[in-house]
Amino acid sequence: MALEGRFETDDGVVYVGGDARQRYHDSRGYGYPLEGNEIALAPVEAAHLLYRGDLEAIVDAASGERLRFREFVAREPGEGFGVRFLVYADLRSRGFYLSPAAEPWVPDPPGGEVDFAVFPRGKGPGDGKIAYALRIVGERTDIPAAELREGVLAVVDEESEITYFEIGRRNPSGTSGSDAALPDGCEADLLADRVVVWEPPLDLYERTFYGQPLEGREYDEPTLQCSLLEAAYLAERGAIDLEPEMVRERGREVEGERFDRRLTVYTELRERGVVPKTGYKFGADFRTYADVESVENLGHSELLVRVHPADYVFEPRDLALDVRLAHGVRKTMVFALVGDGTDRSDAIEWWSLERLTP
Amino acid sequence: MALEGRFETDDGVVYVGGDARQRYHDSRGYGYPLEGNEIALAPVEAAHLLYRGDLEAIVDAASGERLRFREFVAREPGEGFGVRFLVYADLRSRGFYLSPAAEPWVPDPPGGEVDFAVFPRGKGPGDGKIAYALRIVGERTDIPAAELREGVLAVVDEESEITYFEIGRRNPSGTSGSDAALPDGCEADLLADRVVVWEPPLDLYERTFYGQPLEGREYDEPTLQCSLLEAAYLAERGAIDLEPEMVRERGREVEGERFDRRLTVYTELRERGVVPKTGYKFGADFRTYADVESVENLGHSELLVRVHPADYVFEPRDLALDVRLAHGVRKTMVFALVGDGTDRSDAIEWWSLERLTP
Repeated sequence: MALEGRFETDDGVVYVGGDARQRYHDSRGYGYPLEGNEIALAPVEAAHLLYRGDLEAIVDAASGERLRFREFVAREPGEGFGVRFLVYADLRSRGFYLSPAAEPWVPDPPGGEVDFAVFPRGKGPGDGKIAYALRIVGERTDIPAAELREGVLAVVDEESEITYFEIGRRNPSGTSGSDAALPDGCEADLLADRVVVWEPPLDLYERTFYGQPLEGREYDEPTLQCSLLEAAYLAERGAIDLEPEMVRERGREVEGERFDRRLTVYTELRERGVVPKTGYKFGADFRTYADVESVENLGHSELLVRVHPADYVFEPRDLALDVRLAHGVRKTMVFALVGDGTDRSDAIEWWSLERLTP
Repeated sequence: MALEGRFETDDGVVYVGGDARQRYHDSRGYGYPLEGNEIALAPVEAAHLLYRGDLEAIVDAASGERLRFREFVAREPGEGFGVRFLVYADLRSRGFYLSPAAEPWVPDPPGGEVDFAVFPRGKGPGDGKIAYALRIVGERTDIPAAELREGVLAVVDEESEITYFEIGRRNPSGTSGSDAALPDGCEADLLADRVVVWEPPLDLYERTFYGQPLEGREYDEPTLQCSLLEAAYLAERGAIDLEPEMVRERGREVEGERFDRRLTVYTELRERGVVPKTGYKFGADFRTYADVESVENLGHSELLVRVHPADYVFEPRDLALDVRLAHGVRKTMVFALVGDGTDRSDAIEWWSLERLTP
């Protein structure tokens, strides 16, 4: 016989007596145990039991009203109830137990903007292990960059489909050539928003992968076109005979403050032995190559990097687009968040986002 | 022996005498013929001949200075010279002839923001046929929606790689079920930013593809979750028992004015026999199915639709991202531009963008 619950609107929790502890908590991971056999359920847990027909009804302790699934859901008990319920039900149907990321559901809940603690498959709230912290948002909820946490983000779209993203730290590093190999003072001209380097040593392109040869010229003395980022980096190191500040100034003219942020990330990647090339065709700032020995034997680029200021606010739809595209071309989407730290390597936070099927 | 040209800065044109007409114009499609054997060249044409070594030098008519390729290019003769030259050279290397889209290069030049008339392969300026109108922008140049034209858009990225997009009109149409099949006044609840329809006829989902069944319920009486767009459309037609204006009002609360634009496009697509479902996973507004007979035998969705106001300004990088993603999932990217025409079908302009390899 199905039990009934009692909804206390004051504490926003549903109490169930009878043999609830054994039936719902111990064997199936719902709620937290109270004295005797009573348990307390979060609204999503209670709704799920109602939905499954495991709870018969929930009685509103204040009004005495008897609520079935439809009536209980229509009250939207708690902020974001709808999307939380959908994700809760989805993960349970995939064989996971999960609890609200709060005491007393879990003893040591993960901090930050987290909705649920998801337990490893086959484990429950009493087993002392958490597989990951889960945050849930609707597709219209903006996500400030400062709220990113290692864990999983579930986005519920307007038609109630769910996408899961695994969020992690990603520190790019590589073995590509160092500045030691750069030439000295090659002749170069600054044109509109690019730079032409006139007949530099072949290795500038072929080994260290700067620029792009102008088509149709003899290959043993290429004329290289460089982006303003590449040119600013090369000018700073004396490899081309342009004033570094002049190149940066042009960059700011055509791109605004975005240019300095991108140059910070470009420089940091180069110093980490990673070659950044434009990610334009993928809608990103850079695609990156960790281990360039020569352009002739260039491997697959591994990362797509998008540069944002540290106070950027993500829209889930843009995240979906970026991550989906990166996945489709077998690259990992990385966000470089640039703050105003004085030391360059401190100024950048690197985050990766990847699609996840729980 | 290579000829020399004469650059008149006043009219921005390079004149070449000798046997130039036969050598450069008649046999290879450069410039336009003047009296005798003289021809006039646009700066990109002259630069290309210099670059190839076909012209020896260009003499500045005012100063008498003798310019080689580097010096001529460094002057950036004309707006957007750099990107125009790159695309001109690329298309010539692919075997196409092209001329500035202006008289007297071509007798009846295409209107609007067009840079070049590209001739069919094997044809030239004298043959009276244009394969397409070509517009060229750098990746940092914004493109107002009002400037879209049928033709080809070439975008030159910061590292001087070129992407070609074919722009065309695309009027979606299909054979999916009509409103006649809709039920009458199904019970529904409005929750936060979605609507639950309680046990509607199975066909509402299965035949006309509204909503998404709540997982884990019996399938012969599904509980459907609908987006606010679907719900606004269904409420307007009396298929669910919610006030249409209440649903639209909620839509505006959570999405702002974007909601009405999207509803206009949603409604127009439905009335054209096309089923729009959310395009969230592709970062778009809709993916569309032209011929839905049943959800069980659902084909591949054909279009990704992004909705913008008619005065929207595109950034080439976003275009690249959208078109690349659509291509990767074998769909066509379509932009629905919504103006404020009073008649709905007049209010929407439909444009498709697809990658092109010339």
